[in-house]
Amino acid sequence: MEKLQQTIESIKPLDENAMAKAKERQDQLTKPRGSLGVLESLSIKVAGIKGNPMPVIRDKAVIVVAGDHGVAEEGVSAYPQEVTAQMVYNFLAGNAGINVLARHEGIRITVVDAGIISEIPPDNNLVIEKIGHGTNNIAKGPAMTREQAILSLESGISLAIKEKEKGLDIIGAGDMGIANTTPSTAIASVCTKKKVSKIAGLGTGISKEQLKLKIKIIEKAIKINNPDSKDGIDILSKVGGFEIGTIAGIILGAASIQIPVVIDGFISTAGALIAATLCPQVKSYMIAAHSSVESGHNIMLRFLGLQPVLDLKMRLGEGTGSALAMGIIEAACKILCEMKTFKEAGVSDKE
Amino acid sequence: MEKLQQTIESIKPLDENAMAKAKERQDQLTKPRGSLGVLESLSIKVAGIKGNPMPVIRDKAVIVVAGDHGVAEEGVSAYPQEVTAQMVYNFLAGNAGINVLARHEGIRITVVDAGIISEIPPDNNLVIEKIGHGTNNIAKGPAMTREQAILSLESGISLAIKEKEKGLDIIGAGDMGIANTTPSTAIASVCTKKKVSKIAGLGTGISKEQLKLKIKIIEKAIKINNPDSKDGIDILSKVGGFEIGTIAGIILGAASIQIPVVIDGFISTAGALIAATLCPQVKSYMIAAHSSVESGHNIMLRFLGLQPVLDLKMRLGEGTGSALAMGIIEAACKILCEMKTFKEAGVSDKE
Repeated sequence: MEKLQQTIESIKPLDENAMAKAKERQDQLTKPRGSLGVLESLSIKVAGIKGNPMPVIRDKAVIVVAGDHGVAEEGVSAYPQEVTAQMVYNFLAGNAGINVLARHEGIRITVVDAGIISEIPPDNNLVIEKIGHGTNNIAKGPAMTREQAILSLESGISLAIKEKEKGLDIIGAGDMGIANTTPSTAIASVCTKKKVSKIAGLGTGISKEQLKLKIKIIEKAIKINNPDSKDGIDILSKVGGFEIGTIAGIILGAASIQIPVVIDGFISTAGALIAATLCPQVKSYMIAAHSSVESGHNIMLRFLGLQPVLDLKMRLGEGTGSALAMGIIEAACKILCEMKTFKEAGVSDKE
Repeated sequence: MEKLQQTIESIKPLDENAMAKAKERQDQLTKPRGSLGVLESLSIKVAGIKGNPMPVIRDKAVIVVAGDHGVAEEGVSAYPQEVTAQMVYNFLAGNAGINVLARHEGIRITVVDAGIISEIPPDNNLVIEKIGHGTNNIAKGPAMTREQAILSLESGISLAIKEKEKGLDIIGAGDMGIANTTPSTAIASVCTKKKVSKIAGLGTGISKEQLKLKIKIIEKAIKINNPDSKDGIDILSKVGGFEIGTIAGIILGAASIQIPVVIDGFISTAGALIAATLCPQVKSYMIAAHSSVESGHNIMLRFLGLQPVLDLKMRLGEGTGSALAMGIIEAACKILCEMKTFKEAGVSDKE
């Protein structure tokens, strides 16, 4: 608990001075003011996060966190539960969507077992930070103990800080866990106070019938567990998941060391909601990668005050949205640092 | 005229067989079907364009075409006319927005003088394909002769084909030309039959007062010149520009050699409208890079039946939107070619 508390206390407001300087430079570059839109605002935000008016994005990391969910036994997913572990093997072999996109963008990947049911044999690219062997079924009681929730958050904090030791300019967190849109929807409903039916979506591709069942299960989970919407640890322990807690921890950890965090899709945004409940200041370190197809995602982003960078109708998770958005954020910082000003380039400014 | 006619005749429908095979593979990759959204549809489109179910995007080029506009004398732009040439020097020195983004995405740039008023000294990275020394003022008469319009289109065709000789998997065209949103708006209004006031925008950042003047000038240009909305050459010669004609030619040339063309912002889309008027089939080779802030851009994209890949509130031109979108399109093709299928990866499929 001490590590979590210290981390939260060390998250500072953004550096207004660095942001003002970055804005001033953007306005002098050889382009009509504001004409690079989101690229300009992203570069200014990163300047504020890093406390550097000319921030460079070079070392990029995505941590893919996997965990299993007891609620899968209720039939809320289109895929069998063993797929969580099978996909981890797929990540380690370099053949999944996140591997392809991370290679494309020059991003290193760390795969974390935060609570898969089965045991995955040791692998150089796998970090085993198992909080448990799958959560309990939230339709019947809490997902995990309060201690496990704290453990998952602190595990995420340590993961972010370990990445920093390898050199780190930006980080993203992705998820893998069959049935994990179910706890994520529960978290979103509790935090945003919107109805479950407004947030729940088709996940990996369930039928309309299954969606009705899924909504009922989530409503039941919230009713039975009655999480306190002001207590992030309570929400996480009652209706969360091990990978979701770890992702929330990564977000808090990154913010505490002034690293921008690119929030992926539906599940990572549920982690972001937990992090923001624990520490509202952490929101200013978040960049929303994309708008997911999953119904409630935009409700969650709006609640966090975030505008997504991309809208590519994606809904895969794994950090795939984060990976693509990182390329755009890197480009935004290069615009700020590498373009010349009107004066430097000898171009006439606006009349 | 013969080159233009031959090029138009050689533009074929997309390869349906390659598209069907690409779609089949996308549906077998280790992800819920459709969960990579736009990345999936982009890869299938590129497969159809290249006639290859596993298309690779490696060699990428953006041609930045510059030209001056007689109508600048009417006070329709926020910047003085000498900026066209000054920005060309900036491109050649590698310091402009397009240079930074092209370096970021690994794209080579060719800069073309299609009709700047002044003479730019020879440079290894500059192609001089001058159709004239700035167009005539369209508020007083036609921008150029019909012969010049054909010449600019054929020059663009040759430029695309020359790029192919260096190795080419995808191409984009960007623009530079003070006042060029004015002819582009005229072209858009004539082609889409929408009112000038619905399409005209603030360009490089003119005042509301200047916008009123700009709208009047464009309305006058259309009235005086009375272009035939079914004749692309007539529209281009009466209310177009040298760089716009060259861009239209690049689009036609690329389609004739089965290369996907990434359409940039407002001006490049005006070029795309000219190309589509001359050859409706060319639309299937176009990928819209982004949705520009410039008011009428979405009207133009809708008319062409194109969905923009990005929406980053940009309005710089130069090919900057194309450069960023190319990275996404390249990633889309890597997903198709590099991800493993459920069978290959030993992952259980949907139940």
